[in-house]
Amino acid sequence: MKRWLIQNGLFVTLASERPTYEGWLSVEGDRIAGMGEGAAPAHEAEAAEEIVDGKGLLFLPGLINTHGHAAMSLLRGLADDLALQDWLENHMWPTEAKFAGDDVYWGTSLAAAEMILSGTTTFVDMYDHMGRVAEVVEQAGLRASLTRGVIGLCPPEVQTAKLNDAVQFARDWHGKADGRIRAMMSPHAPYTCPPDYIERIVAAAHELGLPLHTHMSESAAEVAQNVRDYGTRPVAHLDSLGFFSRPSLVAHAVHLNDEEIALLAERGVAVSHNPVSNLKLASGVARAPDLLRAGVTVSLGTDSAASNNNLDLFEEIRLAALLHKGVSGDPTAVPAAEALRMGTLYGARAIGLEGVTGELRPGLKADLTAVSIAKPHFVPRTDYVSHLVYAANGADVAHVWVDGKQLLRGRELLTLDAERIRFEAQRCFERLRG
Amino acid sequence: MKRWLIQNGLFVTLASERPTYEGWLSVEGDRIAGMGEGAAPAHEAEAAEEIVDGKGLLFLPGLINTHGHAAMSLLRGLADDLALQDWLENHMWPTEAKFAGDDVYWGTSLAAAEMILSGTTTFVDMYDHMGRVAEVVEQAGLRASLTRGVIGLCPPEVQTAKLNDAVQFARDWHGKADGRIRAMMSPHAPYTCPPDYIERIVAAAHELGLPLHTHMSESAAEVAQNVRDYGTRPVAHLDSLGFFSRPSLVAHAVHLNDEEIALLAERGVAVSHNPVSNLKLASGVARAPDLLRAGVTVSLGTDSAASNNNLDLFEEIRLAALLHKGVSGDPTAVPAAEALRMGTLYGARAIGLEGVTGELRPGLKADLTAVSIAKPHFVPRTDYVSHLVYAANGADVAHVWVDGKQLLRGRELLTLDAERIRFEAQRCFERLRG
Repeated sequence: MKRWLIQNGLFVTLASERPTYEGWLSVEGDRIAGMGEGAAPAHEAEAAEEIVDGKGLLFLPGLINTHGHAAMSLLRGLADDLALQDWLENHMWPTEAKFAGDDVYWGTSLAAAEMILSGTTTFVDMYDHMGRVAEVVEQAGLRASLTRGVIGLCPPEVQTAKLNDAVQFARDWHGKADGRIRAMMSPHAPYTCPPDYIERIVAAAHELGLPLHTHMSESAAEVAQNVRDYGTRPVAHLDSLGFFSRPSLVAHAVHLNDEEIALLAERGVAVSHNPVSNLKLASGVARAPDLLRAGVTVSLGTDSAASNNNLDLFEEIRLAALLHKGVSGDPTAVPAAEALRMGTLYGARAIGLEGVTGELRPGLKADLTAVSIAKPHFVPRTDYVSHLVYAANGADVAHVWVDGKQLLRGRELLTLDAERIRFEAQRCFERLRG
Repeated sequence: MKRWLIQNGLFVTLASERPTYEGWLSVEGDRIAGMGEGAAPAHEAEAAEEIVDGKGLLFLPGLINTHGHAAMSLLRGLADDLALQDWLENHMWPTEAKFAGDDVYWGTSLAAAEMILSGTTTFVDMYDHMGRVAEVVEQAGLRASLTRGVIGLCPPEVQTAKLNDAVQFARDWHGKADGRIRAMMSPHAPYTCPPDYIERIVAAAHELGLPLHTHMSESAAEVAQNVRDYGTRPVAHLDSLGFFSRPSLVAHAVHLNDEEIALLAERGVAVSHNPVSNLKLASGVARAPDLLRAGVTVSLGTDSAASNNNLDLFEEIRLAALLHKGVSGDPTAVPAAEALRMGTLYGARAIGLEGVTGELRPGLKADLTAVSIAKPHFVPRTDYVSHLVYAANGADVAHVWVDGKQLLRGRELLTLDAERIRFEAQRCFERLRG
């Protein structure tokens, strides 16, 4: 196993007494082997096959994007400034209905390139043609929790075919790509899946031992519809269908009352907060500070590039830190370090990868993002956690490693052909719209 | 006068029928000479001393940042996650009290470097030691409206000395640097200046023929204090002091009622909306869509890097487009093109420079920002105005020109020494905190 060493770097640990330190970090194979302040011990330097000069670089855990639909990057800028249902029903769904496997492959490749270039190392993806998504993940070298999202507004035999497809994908790919790929099971949303169909998906998740992921309470209209159709709000509805009996991650959760927050906390449900997408689609502002206070794991997602319109998780981190202050009037809401944890540690926790990734600690996977700090907006050297959250953006990322393998070097993609991806993605888009 | 030509570029005009076009733009001296679709006419190519290949570049009017305190970049990350008054009184003001001219010079240089690197060509600056700020503007090649902000909570002779300083600065620098520097007059805020002092500043502005700039209604507490102290809310208060008898730009204007919005519209007052700073300090969300609907000119400002914490105006543009949708529930609030106008044309209008800068039109100053679009987050080629607003950030800026003179070439600063500035800014910070 290759052993290598970073020297003279700044490292973000987010430990309360010493959130950053200057020193070294060593990697053996796919894991962080050692870390320390100051110069590396002699035995570390001797054992290293390669030494990376960390001067001018700030190393943080690779970012974790816990909600998205990567292939929809093909639809970036196609339709903006519209309401959720209009946007979905009249613009997204008709175009997406034409998506073939190749469109998913190139759209996901486009997203993978953008994510690596902005420091994301792990992402959650809910879409169709998931085998093609998994291919991209394997080639790109990223880590991902992948799930075939099924919409159940269709005849029973189509429902069954979709569920079988989701199960087959999970059987084919869970644990593949050196363990970097994990599977989840996903009804698209309570408003797009009849209750009995959700129960069948939950049963399949139990059988496969997989977590569940869904959209929930994104818009006020959707909550009202749930009450109208089923007599309960979405949290109680999903709870009654056994959804939360599996480890669960719900995306959005914008419209929650106090009882729902308490139940999510009790059931150990994680929430992917997607502040940019929720603002852009005018869905509202999720009660992230209340969820955090209740002990709910709140992670961050970009949602797709069609409602964002980029996959730069630094923007979600910053907006998570800014938005709740302004809306609540409490300037201490979601402090910088907490926002950064939402994009790293809490992301890992939300998808069952705590202790695997999301932190810089010996024994964890070597998923690292290095930010170049030799730039005016990182001056003066006051508080690098603050600078990462309030001043940085994805373009500050210089290098990225996943499982100890370098994916980005000096902003050059090492595992993907950026030029070909841009070309093929444009061609797919033109075919879809032609 | 040098004549040069950009060919094969994409140009943003924001005209409703054709917001972007592919073609050419020529510059003569400090002004845009011609523009057109397709290939440049033979006489344009023949007259050009230099031809810039615009392939892969999107040219837009240089961005205009209408509220800030550039030198406070020295305090970036010093104190975050605090309320406005605590932040000002216990952290900013005590450190700023130690600022000498050199601190202002290097802090402003740091800000100038960051602004050029993120595509801003014109900025408004309210601070002290303004002669040193003007020096930086002259050297950097930027365009700026500069104003000595005076706080009147001091003995009469100090008030007079400050006002004299502001007047002297305006006399020394208004129209200098080939006309790129303009002066304004500024009471810091209604809550930091007694009414009679504001009246004296307004009188001086009339005498000098200069516009006025101030902070207004940033926090709810400040509005309540105004009512307590003077029996009126800040808009009526300033109006009664004759403030709006001069061309006026007010920063923040977060807490306004309908009557105040109507009066600002009637008086032709421009508002600098600073969404990031207002969120970070938990001041609230300004009623930007209501102001726009009432016909008020709404431009964008970063405020200082101490409450932002960067000077990337692309973030303000994006947040202006996102925030008001999510908060109002109206997904059509502040569409992309309107947000981009707030950062360009409306910025020029807010400081009396409409017809001078803020648009790409023959006869206007050649203040250009070129964004590199050969990146995943600009794919596919759907709507470049959408991409600029929802997907881009300041690091996408490749080149910048002001008055036809290039300030940034391939992200290299041509008029400023970035490395020295980082070094000196760090040294100033350490001395201030030592």
